[in-house]
Amino acid sequence: MEKACIIGVGHTKFGILKEKGLVDLLAEASLMAMEDSNTGQEDFDAVYVGAMSSDALNNISGIASALVDKINMIPAAADHIKNGPASGSSAIKAGFQAIASGMADLVLVVGGEKMTHVTTPGFITSTVATITHPEAERIHGISLPAFAGLLTRTYLQKYNAKLEWISDIAIKNHENGALNPYAHFQRTIHDFMESAMKKGKGQWNNVHEFLKDDSVNPIIAAPLRLFHICPISDGAAAVVLCKEKLAKKYSDTPILISGIGQATDTHVVHEREDVTVLNALRLCSQQAYKMAHKTPEDIDVAELHDAFEILEAVQSEDIGFFKKGEGAKAAHEGLTKIGGMIPINPSGGLKARGHPLGATGVAQVVELVWQLRGEAGKRQVEGATTGITCNFGGFGNNILSILVERM
Amino acid sequence: MEKACIIGVGHTKFGILKEKGLVDLLAEASLMAMEDSNTGQEDFDAVYVGAMSSDALNNISGIASALVDKINMIPAAADHIKNGPASGSSAIKAGFQAIASGMADLVLVVGGEKMTHVTTPGFITSTVATITHPEAERIHGISLPAFAGLLTRTYLQKYNAKLEWISDIAIKNHENGALNPYAHFQRTIHDFMESAMKKGKGQWNNVHEFLKDDSVNPIIAAPLRLFHICPISDGAAAVVLCKEKLAKKYSDTPILISGIGQATDTHVVHEREDVTVLNALRLCSQQAYKMAHKTPEDIDVAELHDAFEILEAVQSEDIGFFKKGEGAKAAHEGLTKIGGMIPINPSGGLKARGHPLGATGVAQVVELVWQLRGEAGKRQVEGATTGITCNFGGFGNNILSILVERM
Repeated sequence: MEKACIIGVGHTKFGILKEKGLVDLLAEASLMAMEDSNTGQEDFDAVYVGAMSSDALNNISGIASALVDKINMIPAAADHIKNGPASGSSAIKAGFQAIASGMADLVLVVGGEKMTHVTTPGFITSTVATITHPEAERIHGISLPAFAGLLTRTYLQKYNAKLEWISDIAIKNHENGALNPYAHFQRTIHDFMESAMKKGKGQWNNVHEFLKDDSVNPIIAAPLRLFHICPISDGAAAVVLCKEKLAKKYSDTPILISGIGQATDTHVVHEREDVTVLNALRLCSQQAYKMAHKTPEDIDVAELHDAFEILEAVQSEDIGFFKKGEGAKAAHEGLTKIGGMIPINPSGGLKARGHPLGATGVAQVVELVWQLRGEAGKRQVEGATTGITCNFGGFGNNILSILVERM
Repeated sequence: MEKACIIGVGHTKFGILKEKGLVDLLAEASLMAMEDSNTGQEDFDAVYVGAMSSDALNNISGIASALVDKINMIPAAADHIKNGPASGSSAIKAGFQAIASGMADLVLVVGGEKMTHVTTPGFITSTVATITHPEAERIHGISLPAFAGLLTRTYLQKYNAKLEWISDIAIKNHENGALNPYAHFQRTIHDFMESAMKKGKGQWNNVHEFLKDDSVNPIIAAPLRLFHICPISDGAAAVVLCKEKLAKKYSDTPILISGIGQATDTHVVHEREDVTVLNALRLCSQQAYKMAHKTPEDIDVAELHDAFEILEAVQSEDIGFFKKGEGAKAAHEGLTKIGGMIPINPSGGLKARGHPLGATGVAQVVELVWQLRGEAGKRQVEGATTGITCNFGGFGNNILSILVERM
């Protein structure tokens, strides 16, 4: 198999981007990735767009066709790949396979979502909840935050962990996000606290005290509070993929996609023997490690799917960095900070970079590319040569891991 | 490149299937294809689902994850591929690339749509219209039937053709559909006419007279009438793909996918120099012919995308069977009937088999598999060894052609 390389990346600012539509965001990230890769429109064979809810949120169903027109890439093939909030990773996998199959030499993959214009109360939550099981789950009103609350309770009890450790993950990710010019929140939680104090909203001695105050950090799905949960964001991210043997033609610093894994688990969460174990992640990360001839010990930096901060703890275990039940404690002890044993989410993760659903899987890979190229600025993980991602397409029922390395 | 073979096919009845939901239909076709291919759940590496409007029409966004759970195929990878009414063909292309890349040995591809439960007036038409350009087209109220009406007027005028010849395509496709036990309409237009006469709705001397009567065949988008347009249908179709070298392990009659092409054209229809020329089809069919080392003269049978009967005429030209402007006349002269020079839509096409959007591209390939295996019953094209499809992902702006042949 000839693997694919990443020769260029693009990333819009994530956040509340009022003036731009979904196709505008996809185009912006795409053109950045093309500029970064020294490619021209006529070089491309295919485009893969990852977006979760463009039908529901943007009333557009032909986004891949619309994008190739907007960026003058006609007659390149164009498809839209959907896998919930892992649509971006599934789009990268589709692009990788297009190249590895020999059907394409150069492929653009772009993920994006435009969400913050939606003002109908509950519409975003109910739209995202369309990835849950219609009869066994959704009909009872369960949503993704509810699952995350239940998982947090179970995890804390089973592994004798503390909610403060989950808060530590949020604190770390906001510290990282404060160093990321593309992040939705470029502020530490300490910054949020000081700002609240200045506005006279209260007085707190430290961020943990701030995070326990209902008036500034309300409970959303007990025990999870607002700052344990990622925001709703707009944004897009793109990568240009090419055949390994053509990579040096376009880039001095191509990054190899050396492993990709994808696995599913029971659609219904309650059917799993142990909700704290992500079988799909264990399987898909093993596939990625095996394909790349790597082990978890080889990984220098990881981008995990902390849509809820409990998930980063659980994923850091099932992807092989820590023993089961020790992920939250490891974060508390600082092992996952930049400069720690295994830096996780130097980008700020979904918590601080933001989570425009379909963009996230691509943005994770873009961050790893910047890290492996040594272009991550103040959040650089020194000497990183190998990175891995975890991207959730449902509540643990469809997960991808992408392993990238310096060539 | 190791190409992929089709070792099994499945096809639900198309039509108004009241009792079944979308995932039920996908599962039914999938299980049929698995039985037909002598495969078990544990054999599969990946599943690709093609569906256009499951978010809007069925309020489900994780259909691929839901399907693998329902058919016990966990932990196989699962993705949802969207390309408007060509979602099924794009899913086949994705499955082909998964195999040709070496990432998968055995892949299930299933396309489906559940539409007829929607009773809100205009909702289906406006949902389908989300593939048109939001600012240049949709905002002005244009829909797909409107485009087809305009194309028909232009074609008839430019090539000195007659509307009766377009009607002849519908007549042929209903004759073929009457021989297809899976078709939505298993009745000839002559049957419809006789039934209307029995009910006292009128008296007509022949079907052309019947088709010109506003009371039984009203104008939908002038000059197109009801019988020039495909129905809204429910249904699903599936194929099991495997590596060429494993095919004989599962099937005595594997069918090779020897060529696949996909190309885009301007998203906005009015930007094309000549609306009667399908540039994307010319390109994608040339890609498929080239990949398969075939020419249009090698094709024994074709399944084209007659969502509107004018499209079959135009496509039969741009795919290389007839000179520009001669497709409608060729149909009128019987060249595209079963037994004719190049039989088109022996299945009944979208007109009579029905058009559950995401199912269509897969159903086209399933029909060709039956034809090449010699299993098409009364609608068999004798001695067919090679077939090709055309599937539309928008109004000419994203088209796929899949070329299959007997091994």
